[in-house]
Amino acid sequence: MRNREDDLTRETALLAHLRTLATHPAARGLADDAALLGDLVLTHDTIVEGVHYLPADPPESVGWKLAAVNLSDLAAKGAEPAGALLSLTVAPAQAGTSSWEERFLDGLHEACTAFGLPLLGGDTVVLPAGAPRVLGLSAFGRATGPVPSRSGGRAGDLLWLISTLGDAAAGLRQLQADPSALGALVEAYRRPRPLLAEGRALAPHASAMMDVSDGLLLDARRLAEASGCGWRIDLAAFPLSPAFRQAVGEDRSARLFAATGGDDYALLGAFPLDFDPRLTLPKDSGATVALVGELTRSGVFALADALGPVPLPERLGYEHD
Amino acid sequence: MRNREDDLTRETALLAHLRTLATHPAARGLADDAALLGDLVLTHDTIVEGVHYLPADPPESVGWKLAAVNLSDLAAKGAEPAGALLSLTVAPAQAGTSSWEERFLDGLHEACTAFGLPLLGGDTVVLPAGAPRVLGLSAFGRATGPVPSRSGGRAGDLLWLISTLGDAAAGLRQLQADPSALGALVEAYRRPRPLLAEGRALAPHASAMMDVSDGLLLDARRLAEASGCGWRIDLAAFPLSPAFRQAVGEDRSARLFAATGGDDYALLGAFPLDFDPRLTLPKDSGATVALVGELTRSGVFALADALGPVPLPERLGYEHD
Repeated sequence: MRNREDDLTRETALLAHLRTLATHPAARGLADDAALLGDLVLTHDTIVEGVHYLPADPPESVGWKLAAVNLSDLAAKGAEPAGALLSLTVAPAQAGTSSWEERFLDGLHEACTAFGLPLLGGDTVVLPAGAPRVLGLSAFGRATGPVPSRSGGRAGDLLWLISTLGDAAAGLRQLQADPSALGALVEAYRRPRPLLAEGRALAPHASAMMDVSDGLLLDARRLAEASGCGWRIDLAAFPLSPAFRQAVGEDRSARLFAATGGDDYALLGAFPLDFDPRLTLPKDSGATVALVGELTRSGVFALADALGPVPLPERLGYEHD
Repeated sequence: MRNREDDLTRETALLAHLRTLATHPAARGLADDAALLGDLVLTHDTIVEGVHYLPADPPESVGWKLAAVNLSDLAAKGAEPAGALLSLTVAPAQAGTSSWEERFLDGLHEACTAFGLPLLGGDTVVLPAGAPRVLGLSAFGRATGPVPSRSGGRAGDLLWLISTLGDAAAGLRQLQADPSALGALVEAYRRPRPLLAEGRALAPHASAMMDVSDGLLLDARRLAEASGCGWRIDLAAFPLSPAFRQAVGEDRSARLFAATGGDDYALLGAFPLDFDPRLTLPKDSGATVALVGELTRSGVFALADALGPVPLPERLGYEHD
């Protein structure tokens, strides 16, 4: 039997082992969204059929998403996309099969073109029959200035969030209930938009910055722990989209869903008290910006809303996927 | 039923599709071992359990090999290793399982340390139960001078081969007959040594250079076709190791086996008539060097040995793996 707890324990042990091997300063202790080699920002994401995407997802949106999640890592470091290498597994030929891979490539290419990430090479390998697809992308970007890590936050820094939360998780829930669901939330799940211009504008001012991919509470804890801080976060301050409010609501339970859902690809930054991201973002950004909390000297993670303290949910987000 | 011909047709179609997407000059038309972005050489290799390695192979040697095959691509471009990103899939936990992944990482780390390739980051994902492992590595190197492509060869250039041929293929054959086989040939299959110092020394002088990974005849045809040439190759000139001669022989059939076996990670270079690699290689290289043929104006691929012309075998090597 598959045992999720065992998987997590093994992955945690493996990551600890990996950290003892990745000792080069450019690896940043494997505790960041990306490695930094000279002025080059390097990142890799792998997605697995049935684990990171639904087998029924349109192949174009799987391709788009693979590019977008890598670009989001570059965005969080303020990097300009420079190139990518693709690892493409090809399922064995089946009579009458439509070309999943070609449609996947079209979606990948669409995102690469939209965000200026040239595809430079990679590898294509045939899988044994019945094996799930495993799709990987390494993306490289050029730093455009100082590159914020996760670990530079200081007690007193304010936590700002760029983009709304929960849309993708709500879209996934809609698809799980009805695979033919459509709309803004499904679109947010399938076609996230990396905040490249926003990341470039904010990176030089951030004490610490990362993209929110596994759930805000989990990623905010990672940022705070890397910075040796705790935080106070105001659940009521979370930016929610009109589509999310309509589908899920905006009460405490809806907000906790949004804060732990994952797949947001929002930017979370810690900035000095006197910095206001709203004055620095590109005028045509259109992204929602919200002050959601602050880093604290304590190691405590304190969540609250207008009704008072909110107990931290047991699951803060998606670990190690 | 799995149909190898269908797989090849689909992969060829996919690669054609990929070429229409990878139009950036740095992609070199996807017709090279690596992409070249500024002075950065970028390559990616993915290996699949049961396809590129035997499930019974020691995990340490799988890790070593994944690093070595990427390093061999850097060697063929004369690049100095700078860093790597690992895509590691983790098989679901099973009671009593030994840690395959930790042993894999130890072998990878051993090769990375031996050849100066720092592990900088990557991604770790859990697989569905029963799925074969898919392991990927993106490697980056710094060009140390002019970076030879596959396409710069000119009619009249001499074809030189650095390292012996056929050892790995013979080792694989031994393992297929007896999984507990050991010895120099098995070692060549499991732990190839990338010719980094040799590549750096030769790259500035090569009209074209690549590493021989899929079989000499196939890779030499790729180099010639990219250069708009044919070749004459002397089967009798192939360097064979003492272990290979003892296990397989050195007659025409043994030499054809060596020329099509794959997994050699030798270097194949086209050099001007007046260049002799033996005078340029590092004194401590120890690698075998042999003049094996020349590029010709015709588009013909002519193989010969002391007995006369040798018909080209139907299979020149491993396509598209």
